[in-house]
Amino acid sequence: MLGRTYDREICSAARALEIAGERWSLLILRNAMFAGMTRFTEFQKSLGIAPNVLTARLKHFVETGIMEMSGEGRDGHEAYRLTEKGLDFKPVIIALTEWGDRWAAPEGPPIVCEHDGCGGRIRLTLSCPKCGESPELDDVTARKTAVMERLRRRRTG
Amino acid sequence: MLGRTYDREICSAARALEIAGERWSLLILRNAMFAGMTRFTEFQKSLGIAPNVLTARLKHFVETGIMEMSGEGRDGHEAYRLTEKGLDFKPVIIALTEWGDRWAAPEGPPIVCEHDGCGGRIRLTLSCPKCGESPELDDVTARKTAVMERLRRRRTG
Repeated sequence: MLGRTYDREICSAARALEIAGERWSLLILRNAMFAGMTRFTEFQKSLGIAPNVLTARLKHFVETGIMEMSGEGRDGHEAYRLTEKGLDFKPVIIALTEWGDRWAAPEGPPIVCEHDGCGGRIRLTLSCPKCGESPELDDVTARKTAVMERLRRRRTG
Repeated sequence: MLGRTYDREICSAARALEIAGERWSLLILRNAMFAGMTRFTEFQKSLGIAPNVLTARLKHFVETGIMEMSGEGRDGHEAYRLTEKGLDFKPVIIALTEWGDRWAAPEGPPIVCEHDGCGGRIRLTLSCPKCGESPELDDVTARKTAVMERLRRRRTG
Protein backbone atom coordinates (compact mmCIF):
# COMPACT_ATOMS: atom_id res chain seq x y z
CA MET A 1 0.00 0.00 0.00
CA LEU A 2 1.06 3.57 -0.46
CA GLY A 3 0.09 4.44 3.11
CA ARG A 4 3.48 4.68 4.67
CA THR A 5 4.99 6.58 1.81
CA TYR A 6 2.29 9.22 2.01
CA ASP A 7 2.35 9.46 5.80
CA ARG A 8 3.48 13.08 5.73
CA GLU A 9 0.58 13.96 3.51
CA ILE A 10 -2.43 15.54 5.18
CA CYS A 11 -4.66 15.55 2.15
CA SER A 12 -7.86 13.84 1.13
CA ALA A 13 -6.61 13.24 -2.41
CA ALA A 14 -3.55 11.46 -0.97
CA ARG A 15 -5.79 9.34 1.24
CA ALA A 16 -7.92 8.39 -1.72
CA LEU A 17 -4.76 7.38 -3.56
CA GLU A 18 -3.71 5.22 -0.64
CA ILE A 19 -6.80 3.13 -1.29
CA ALA A 20 -7.19 3.30 -5.06
CA GLY A 21 -3.82 4.50 -6.31
CA GLU A 22 -2.04 1.19 -6.62
CA ARG A 23 -1.35 -0.11 -10.07
CA TRP A 24 -4.53 -1.75 -11.47
CA SER A 25 -6.80 -0.62 -8.63
CA LEU A 26 -8.77 1.94 -10.60
CA LEU A 27 -9.11 -0.40 -13.59
CA ILE A 28 -10.55 -3.09 -11.33
CA LEU A 29 -12.98 -0.53 -9.90
CA ARG A 30 -13.86 0.64 -13.40
CA ASN A 31 -14.74 -2.89 -14.56
CA ALA A 32 -16.81 -3.46 -11.43
CA MET A 33 -18.62 -0.15 -11.86
CA PHE A 34 -19.21 0.09 -15.56
CA ALA A 35 -19.10 -3.52 -16.74
CA GLY A 36 -20.80 -5.07 -13.71
CA MET A 37 -17.99 -7.55 -13.06
CA THR A 38 -18.02 -9.35 -9.71
CA ARG A 39 -15.90 -12.49 -10.14
CA PHE A 40 -12.18 -13.04 -9.79
CA THR A 41 -11.93 -14.74 -13.16
CA GLU A 42 -13.84 -11.93 -14.89
CA PHE A 43 -11.41 -9.32 -13.60
CA GLN A 44 -8.48 -11.57 -14.36
CA LYS A 45 -9.44 -12.30 -17.94
CA SER A 46 -10.56 -8.77 -18.81
CA LEU A 47 -7.42 -7.07 -17.48
CA GLY A 48 -4.77 -9.73 -18.06
CA ILE A 49 -3.56 -9.01 -14.54
CA ALA A 50 -1.36 -11.46 -12.61
CA PRO A 51 -3.52 -13.56 -10.23
CA ASN A 52 -1.38 -12.77 -7.16
CA VAL A 53 -1.70 -9.03 -7.82
CA LEU A 54 -5.45 -9.31 -8.35
CA THR A 55 -5.81 -11.31 -5.11
CA ALA A 56 -3.95 -8.58 -3.21
CA ARG A 57 -6.03 -5.77 -4.72
CA LEU A 58 -9.38 -7.46 -4.03
CA LYS A 59 -8.30 -8.30 -0.47
CA HIS A 60 -7.35 -4.67 0.08
CA PHE A 61 -10.69 -3.47 -1.32
CA VAL A 62 -12.57 -5.75 1.08
CA GLU A 63 -10.41 -4.69 4.05
CA THR A 64 -10.93 -1.00 3.34
CA GLY A 65 -14.66 -1.34 2.76
CA ILE A 66 -14.61 -0.61 -0.98
CA MET A 67 -15.98 -4.06 -1.80
CA GLU A 68 -17.91 -6.78 0.00
CA MET A 69 -17.38 -10.45 -0.65
CA SER A 70 -20.25 -12.90 -0.81
CA GLY A 71 -20.76 -16.44 -2.00
CA GLU A 72 -23.51 -15.42 -4.35
CA GLY A 73 -21.73 -15.42 -7.70
CA ARG A 74 -23.62 -16.90 -10.63
CA ASP A 75 -21.67 -20.17 -10.53
CA GLY A 76 -21.39 -20.44 -6.76
CA HIS A 77 -17.97 -18.77 -6.74
CA GLU A 78 -17.29 -15.78 -4.54
CA ALA A 79 -18.58 -12.45 -5.77
CA TYR A 80 -16.96 -9.08 -5.10
CA ARG A 81 -19.50 -6.28 -5.01
CA LEU A 82 -18.87 -2.57 -4.64
CA THR A 83 -20.12 -0.90 -1.49
CA GLU A 84 -21.42 2.68 -1.42
CA LYS A 85 -17.86 3.74 -0.56
CA GLY A 86 -16.61 1.97 -3.68
CA LEU A 87 -19.38 3.21 -5.97
CA ASP A 88 -18.49 6.71 -4.85
CA PHE A 89 -15.28 6.45 -6.90
CA LYS A 90 -17.32 6.85 -10.08
CA PRO A 91 -16.55 10.58 -10.47
CA VAL A 92 -12.82 9.82 -10.24
CA ILE A 93 -13.09 7.32 -13.08
CA ILE A 94 -15.23 9.70 -15.12
CA ALA A 95 -12.72 12.54 -14.55
CA LEU A 96 -9.81 10.32 -15.64
CA THR A 97 -11.81 9.21 -18.68
CA GLU A 98 -12.61 12.79 -19.68
CA TRP A 99 -8.93 13.72 -19.48
CA GLY A 100 -7.91 10.67 -21.51
CA ASP A 101 -10.61 11.31 -24.12
CA ARG A 102 -9.37 14.86 -24.56
CA TRP A 103 -5.62 14.29 -24.50
CA ALA A 104 -4.89 10.65 -25.25
CA ALA A 105 -7.56 9.36 -27.63
CA PRO A 106 -6.81 10.80 -31.09
CA GLU A 107 -9.11 8.24 -32.70
CA GLY A 108 -12.05 9.20 -30.49
CA PRO A 109 -13.37 7.89 -27.16
CA PRO A 110 -13.58 4.07 -26.94
CA ILE A 111 -16.18 4.32 -24.17
CA VAL A 112 -18.78 6.97 -23.50
CA CYS A 113 -20.82 7.61 -20.37
CA GLU A 114 -24.44 8.18 -21.22
CA HIS A 115 -27.43 9.49 -19.33
CA ASP A 116 -29.94 6.66 -18.90
CA GLY A 117 -32.82 9.06 -19.32
CA CYS A 118 -32.04 10.64 -22.68
CA GLY A 119 -28.80 9.06 -23.95
CA GLY A 120 -26.84 12.33 -23.69
CA ARG A 121 -23.07 12.24 -23.12
CA ILE A 122 -22.41 12.88 -19.41
CA ARG A 123 -19.93 15.62 -18.48
CA LEU A 124 -18.36 16.48 -15.15
CA THR A 125 -18.80 20.13 -14.29
CA LEU A 126 -17.88 22.30 -11.35
CA SER A 127 -20.73 23.84 -9.45
CA CYS A 128 -20.90 26.33 -6.62
CA PRO A 129 -23.81 25.63 -4.28
CA LYS A 130 -23.48 29.11 -2.76
CA CYS A 131 -24.03 31.26 -5.84
CA GLY A 132 -25.42 28.58 -8.16
CA GLU A 133 -22.87 29.25 -10.90
CA SER A 134 -20.74 26.71 -12.81
CA PRO A 135 -17.23 28.16 -12.30
CA GLU A 136 -14.36 27.65 -14.73
CA LEU A 137 -11.33 25.70 -13.48
CA ASP A 138 -9.35 28.94 -13.24
CA ASP A 139 -11.83 30.35 -10.75
CA VAL A 140 -11.15 27.68 -8.12
CA THR A 141 -8.63 28.16 -5.32
CA ALA A 142 -7.57 25.58 -2.72
CA ARG A 143 -7.47 26.82 0.87
CA LYS A 144 -6.08 25.10 3.97
CA THR A 145 -8.61 24.74 6.78
CA ALA A 146 -8.30 24.77 10.59
CA VAL A 147 -8.37 20.96 10.39
CA MET A 148 -5.07 21.07 8.50
CA GLU A 149 -3.49 23.19 11.25
CA ARG A 150 -4.77 20.87 13.99
CA LEU A 151 -3.43 17.80 12.19
CA ARG A 152 -0.07 19.49 11.62
CA ARG A 153 0.26 20.44 15.29
CA ARG A 154 -0.71 16.96 16.43
CA ARG A 155 1.96 15.39 14.19
CA THR A 156 4.78 17.71 15.10
CA GLY A 157 3.76 18.33 18.75
CA MET B 1 5.80 4.00 -16.58
CA LEU B 2 2.69 1.86 -16.55
CA GLY B 3 2.39 1.90 -20.36
CA ARG B 4 3.42 -1.63 -21.15
CA THR B 5 1.45 -3.15 -18.33
CA TYR B 6 -1.73 -1.52 -19.58
CA ASP B 7 -1.12 -2.30 -23.24
CA ARG B 8 -4.18 -4.49 -23.52
CA GLU B 9 -6.34 -1.69 -22.20
CA ILE B 10 -8.29 0.34 -24.74
CA CYS B 11 -9.58 2.91 -22.32
CA SER B 12 -9.10 6.62 -21.78
CA ALA B 13 -8.99 6.21 -18.00
CA ALA B 14 -6.17 3.69 -18.41
CA ARG B 15 -4.31 6.08 -20.69
CA ALA B 16 -4.67 8.88 -18.17
CA LEU B 17 -3.27 6.54 -15.52
CA GLU B 18 -0.28 5.77 -17.74
CA ILE B 19 0.63 9.43 -17.46
CA ALA B 20 -0.48 10.35 -13.95
CA GLY B 21 -0.96 7.03 -12.19
CA GLU B 22 2.58 6.46 -10.94
CA ARG B 23 3.20 6.81 -7.25
CA TRP B 24 3.54 10.53 -6.37
CA SER B 25 2.50 11.81 -9.80
CA LEU B 26 -0.88 13.16 -8.77
CA LEU B 27 0.54 14.72 -5.61
CA ILE B 28 3.16 16.57 -7.66
CA LEU B 29 0.42 17.78 -10.01
CA ARG B 30 -1.71 18.80 -7.04
CA ASN B 31 1.08 20.93 -5.54
CA ALA B 32 1.76 22.54 -8.91
CA MET B 33 -1.95 23.24 -9.44
CA PHE B 34 -3.16 24.33 -6.07
CA ALA B 35 0.00 25.58 -4.33
CA GLY B 36 1.65 27.17 -7.37
CA MET B 37 4.87 25.21 -6.97
CA THR B 38 7.29 25.24 -9.91
CA ARG B 39 10.73 24.33 -8.51
CA PHE B 40 12.35 20.96 -7.90
CA THR B 41 13.26 21.86 -4.32
CA GLU B 42 9.71 23.02 -3.55
CA PHE B 43 8.24 19.69 -4.67
CA GLN B 44 10.99 17.82 -2.91
CA LYS B 45 10.58 19.53 0.45
CA SER B 46 6.79 19.61 0.44
CA LEU B 47 6.38 15.93 -0.40
CA GLY B 48 9.46 14.39 1.19
CA ILE B 49 9.91 12.43 -2.04
CA ALA B 50 13.24 10.83 -2.99
CA PRO B 51 15.13 13.10 -5.43
CA ASN B 52 15.68 10.36 -8.02
CA VAL B 53 11.96 9.57 -8.07
CA LEU B 54 11.06 13.25 -8.37
CA THR B 55 13.54 13.69 -11.22
CA ALA B 56 11.95 10.78 -13.08
CA ARG B 57 8.41 12.07 -12.55
CA LEU B 58 9.20 15.63 -13.71
CA LYS B 59 11.08 14.30 -16.74
CA HIS B 60 8.08 12.16 -17.65
CA PHE B 61 5.73 15.13 -17.25
CA VAL B 62 7.87 17.21 -19.62
CA GLU B 63 8.14 14.36 -22.15
CA THR B 64 4.39 13.79 -22.17
CA GLY B 65 3.54 17.48 -22.42
CA ILE B 66 2.03 17.82 -18.94
CA MET B 67 4.68 20.35 -17.91
CA GLU B 68 7.10 22.71 -19.64
CA MET B 69 10.53 23.48 -18.29
CA SER B 70 11.97 26.97 -18.41
CA GLY B 71 14.89 28.74 -16.76
CA GLU B 72 12.61 31.36 -15.29
CA GLY B 73 12.39 30.25 -11.67
CA ARG B 74 12.55 32.98 -9.03
CA ASP B 75 16.18 32.19 -8.16
CA GLY B 76 17.37 31.42 -11.68
CA HIS B 77 16.76 27.71 -11.22
CA GLU B 78 14.66 25.74 -13.67
CA ALA B 79 10.92 26.10 -13.33
CA TYR B 80 8.38 23.41 -14.14
CA ARG B 81 5.08 24.87 -15.26
CA LEU B 82 1.86 23.05 -16.05
CA THR B 83 0.65 23.16 -19.64
CA GLU B 84 -3.03 23.22 -20.58
CA LYS B 85 -2.84 19.43 -20.78
CA GLY B 86 -1.52 19.36 -17.21
CA LEU B 87 -3.97 21.91 -15.83
CA ASP B 88 -6.74 19.79 -17.28
CA PHE B 89 -6.07 17.22 -14.55
CA LYS B 90 -7.73 19.51 -12.01
CA PRO B 91 -11.08 17.69 -12.08
CA VAL B 92 -9.29 14.40 -11.33
CA ILE B 93 -7.65 15.92 -8.25
CA ILE B 94 -10.93 17.49 -7.16
CA ALA B 95 -12.75 14.16 -7.61
CA LEU B 96 -10.13 12.33 -5.53
CA THR B 97 -10.32 15.03 -2.87
CA GLU B 98 -14.11 14.81 -2.68
CA TRP B 99 -13.92 11.06 -2.22
CA GLY B 100 -11.25 11.39 0.46
CA ASP B 101 -13.19 14.12 2.27
CA ARG B 102 -16.23 11.91 2.37
CA TRP B 103 -14.66 8.58 3.25
CA ALA B 104 -11.21 9.16 4.73
CA ALA B 105 -11.30 12.45 6.64
CA PRO B 106 -13.23 11.85 9.89
CA GLU B 107 -11.85 15.08 11.34
CA GLY B 108 -13.06 17.16 8.41
CA PRO B 109 -11.44 18.27 5.14
CA PRO B 110 -7.89 19.64 5.50
CA ILE B 111 -8.20 21.56 2.24
CA VAL B 112 -11.26 23.04 0.57
CA CYS B 113 -11.70 24.23 -3.00
CA GLU B 114 -13.45 27.58 -3.08
CA HIS B 115 -15.09 29.65 -5.79
CA ASP B 116 -13.04 32.83 -6.28
CA GLY B 117 -16.17 34.82 -6.93
CA CYS B 118 -18.18 34.13 -3.79
CA GLY B 119 -16.08 31.82 -1.58
CA GLY B 120 -18.54 28.91 -1.93
CA ARG B 121 -17.31 25.30 -1.65
CA ILE B 122 -16.88 23.91 -5.15
CA ARG B 123 -18.53 20.56 -5.96
CA LEU B 124 -18.15 18.28 -8.93
CA THR B 125 -21.49 17.38 -10.45
CA LEU B 126 -22.60 15.35 -13.42
CA SER B 127 -24.41 17.20 -16.14
CA CYS B 128 -26.14 16.11 -19.30
CA PRO B 129 -25.78 18.66 -22.09
CA LYS B 130 -28.60 17.00 -24.04
CA CYS B 131 -31.44 17.32 -21.53
CA GLY B 132 -29.84 19.86 -19.19
CA GLU B 133 -30.36 17.71 -16.11
CA SER B 134 -27.82 16.85 -13.38
CA PRO B 135 -28.09 13.04 -13.31
CA GLU B 136 -27.36 10.92 -10.26
CA LEU B 137 -24.42 8.50 -10.46
CA ASP B 138 -26.85 5.59 -10.76
CA ASP B 139 -28.30 7.06 -13.93
CA VAL B 140 -25.02 6.84 -15.87
CA THR B 141 -24.14 3.86 -18.08
CA ALA B 142 -20.87 3.27 -19.92
CA ARG B 143 -21.19 2.18 -23.55
CA LYS B 144 -18.53 0.90 -25.93
CA THR B 145 -18.26 2.92 -29.13
CA ALA B 146 -17.36 1.97 -32.71
CA VAL B 147 -13.85 3.27 -31.94
CA MET B 148 -13.47 0.47 -29.39
CA GLU B 149 -14.43 -2.13 -32.00
CA ARG B 150 -12.01 -0.67 -34.57
CA LEU B 151 -9.16 -0.65 -32.05
CA ARG B 152 -9.95 -4.22 -31.01
CA ARG B 153 -9.95 -5.45 -34.60
CA ARG B 154 -6.69 -3.65 -35.37
CA ARG B 155 -5.00 -5.28 -32.39
CA THR B 156 -6.21 -8.78 -32.97
CA GLY B 157 -6.27 -8.68 -36.80
